[in-house]
Amino acid sequence: MDQKCINNIIQANVVDELCDAIGYENILDKIEERVCYSFGDRKEKFIPELVITPHSTEQVSSIVIIANKHNISICQRGAGDGLSGDVVSINGGIVLDLKNMNRIVELNAKDLTVTVEPGIVIKDLQEEVAKLRLFYPPGQAGTEFSTIGGNVAESTGGMTGMKYGVTRDYVLALEIVLPDGSVINTGRKTLKSVAGYDLTRFFVGSAGTLGVLTKITLKLLPMPEKIATVKSFFKDIDSALNATDSILIKSHLHPRSLFFADKTCIDAVRDSAEEEIPEEVEVLLLIDVDGNEKNVANDISMIDALCRENGALNISIANSDKDRNTLWDIRKYLSLLLFKTSAMKFSKDICVPRSKVRVALKKINELSKSYSLQVAAFGNIGEGHINVNVICNNVKEVGTSVNNPVSQLLQEVVSIRETITSGQDVGEMKSGFKGLALAPHEIEIMTGLKKMFDPKGIMNPGNIFI
Amino acid sequence: MDQKCINNIIQANVVDELCDAIGYENILDKIEERVCYSFGDRKEKFIPELVITPHSTEQVSSIVIIANKHNISICQRGAGDGLSGDVVSINGGIVLDLKNMNRIVELNAKDLTVTVEPGIVIKDLQEEVAKLRLFYPPGQAGTEFSTIGGNVAESTGGMTGMKYGVTRDYVLALEIVLPDGSVINTGRKTLKSVAGYDLTRFFVGSAGTLGVLTKITLKLLPMPEKIATVKSFFKDIDSALNATDSILIKSHLHPRSLFFADKTCIDAVRDSAEEEIPEEVEVLLLIDVDGNEKNVANDISMIDALCRENGALNISIANSDKDRNTLWDIRKYLSLLLFKTSAMKFSKDICVPRSKVRVALKKINELSKSYSLQVAAFGNIGEGHINVNVICNNVKEVGTSVNNPVSQLLQEVVSIRETITSGQDVGEMKSGFKGLALAPHEIEIMTGLKKMFDPKGIMNPGNIFI
Repeated sequence: MDQKCINNIIQANVVDELCDAIGYENILDKIEERVCYSFGDRKEKFIPELVITPHSTEQVSSIVIIANKHNISICQRGAGDGLSGDVVSINGGIVLDLKNMNRIVELNAKDLTVTVEPGIVIKDLQEEVAKLRLFYPPGQAGTEFSTIGGNVAESTGGMTGMKYGVTRDYVLALEIVLPDGSVINTGRKTLKSVAGYDLTRFFVGSAGTLGVLTKITLKLLPMPEKIATVKSFFKDIDSALNATDSILIKSHLHPRSLFFADKTCIDAVRDSAEEEIPEEVEVLLLIDVDGNEKNVANDISMIDALCRENGALNISIANSDKDRNTLWDIRKYLSLLLFKTSAMKFSKDICVPRSKVRVALKKINELSKSYSLQVAAFGNIGEGHINVNVICNNVKEVGTSVNNPVSQLLQEVVSIRETITSGQDVGEMKSGFKGLALAPHEIEIMTGLKKMFDPKGIMNPGNIFI
Repeated sequence: MDQKCINNIIQANVVDELCDAIGYENILDKIEERVCYSFGDRKEKFIPELVITPHSTEQVSSIVIIANKHNISICQRGAGDGLSGDVVSINGGIVLDLKNMNRIVELNAKDLTVTVEPGIVIKDLQEEVAKLRLFYPPGQAGTEFSTIGGNVAESTGGMTGMKYGVTRDYVLALEIVLPDGSVINTGRKTLKSVAGYDLTRFFVGSAGTLGVLTKITLKLLPMPEKIATVKSFFKDIDSALNATDSILIKSHLHPRSLFFADKTCIDAVRDSAEEEIPEEVEVLLLIDVDGNEKNVANDISMIDALCRENGALNISIANSDKDRNTLWDIRKYLSLLLFKTSAMKFSKDICVPRSKVRVALKKINELSKSYSLQVAAFGNIGEGHINVNVICNNVKEVGTSVNNPVSQLLQEVVSIRETITSGQDVGEMKSGFKGLALAPHEIEIMTGLKKMFDPKGIMNPGNIFI
């Protein structure tokens, strides 16, 4: 394990200040406690100087004031499952673990809004609002442990974006502790609110570089009466994408999710799958529809017919939650199963316009051949999202050079489209691609904005692109 | 007519520079031409020094560079129907009329995106995308003449926000000419894109104070198979709002619009209405639903039953476009008919959480009585939007004092909720309410942002709150 303690030592008097402000019981300073926070999705491990677990906005404010005074960096951490290099503190300094700030502050069913603290786990929120037959559409593979704060800071996509939009569309208001420790409120708890500039959506996706989100007001929707899933196997990418076009474009159906997985993924899950998957299967599609009972039955019947028209080898339909979960298990365990077949997993997310998905998948396939590396691709292609994974069984394949074949392949994947992420590489990974996704003048503006909010650069230094 | 020419004279050499840059044919300098641009929704009229009508981003950039060099203010104007005090140039200077920049640059049906120039009229855009069975959900009473640029700059709400969201949710990418004349691109033409800070949504609603939007990429949706409308009359506000709650909360129906109008509105339209409206009618509800044919029939039937359960006096249902337009004519002509009954019309928009609509309407009614002024209220209450109009037949009622009864009433209306607008008072009107909607620290941040983008303060000076 490669551990670094970057020289950002926190002096004893500063620790005393922090104890006076928020209590020693909320500070982890022992090495065995701090090392747990050195893990993220980066190869290297970074141990923070201190880990602090505040319980309130006031405590967060006190911590930030002290850190600001002494030029100590602060990195925020929710579940720690972020894939953007944002959850570890590369400069030592403080890791702010928001797990204790996990309450539902206010839930208003009539207004379809909920205000939460950032450490609340998405799954817990969903369960609570479900009691009132409401739901929070943005969700993802990690909803069992991912936090709302993390998702909003990274502006994630979720699984139902094609019908319901993404996290950014659901954030109505924020309470933020700025890098100087002051507390502001942005937005309003109503659908329409335009007083001043839209700071709310500006902070969404800011990856902890502009402040700490301490309260988040989200829009909710009434839970649909019914959700159903169609699983369909295809013999090649073309027929699967033809089916997709038929469903989305020609038939004006409006699924809430449309997920695909390629041959490498299917081969990885084949042994673990409950059903037998024929050898000729090369693509899997999982399609969810929702609405009232009659509407869903109608849509499912149409999707079934369209898949068959486009050469589906096999179709399963699930109407109950239990059966639906069984079909979606493939998605849930995919990352783990791919990792199991590979000693090391490298991945990148890209988002392309839907009309370019076919071209993108073909290009990814060509890269796999030209680099002689096995690649697995899956994603919510209804939104143009593709997660590309390079399967490496041999460290030597990777090598130590910065321009090893895996890195080169993934760089080429990234350049398939000017957009390099769908929410999973907002942080450090992007700093190496500074020139790729943003024009120099745009980077200048964003740098200026960062400096305006955080002149000392204490909030998540090294992330986004600073 | 009260005309002002604020001392912001444009010297002859500057006019020459502009002519060299973009051609004299695009510059209006004669008084009789310029006076047409002095009208907006402000009481006072302001004649600009020059009106310029660019055709391209390059021309806009040239104009802004010259204006910046010589410290000349620029005010942008689309259809001129904005109600935020943004469409006239209070400092003389330049009015930039974007009517010639009205093209559809790119329409991509497969990706459900369209890129347009700011001067395109919303109705023209809708007609064009409708040919491909697509639609752009945010729309409003003025879609026949309002421009996309104006709507995005003011971050308007539209009529279908409760189901489809608002303008801000549909802007994917922007091309912007900044106050120094440089051109940047923000956002990406995909659903998920998080590279850097979300500048796109930051510019939405910036009311021309941060730059000129020269290209706008919008999300489209597949047109629903069917839209139907229910019109229902009620004898009082309570039964109408009970029906609303039943529809939205208890029955999990998902209308695309839910519009209400009070007794004053009904009295104003009574004589012009095609049908006879009984005297006891005090509230009108107009409810739109959409989806596939079967789904819509189901929803309409449920709404009809719920209205009856809550004491509806009369219900009409429209299934064809023609019949639907007839029902919605009331909304279309309401402002004109209210103005017809009143020598002067003063109005304010407020947006309250849906659960507060009942309280807000009661409060408005009380204000009307306590000030002895006739008030008409209508709006998309499904989203908590209420447009409050004071009907004045006598200038003396208004008086000349800053704190005349009408102003006082409207100030109290505004303070009913911390949010003072739903998109119709982003600009100057709000400058008088500086302390009402934003905390001092938030104003400080927004002022700082304005200064960062526009250090010389040339873009729409006096608007938002600077």
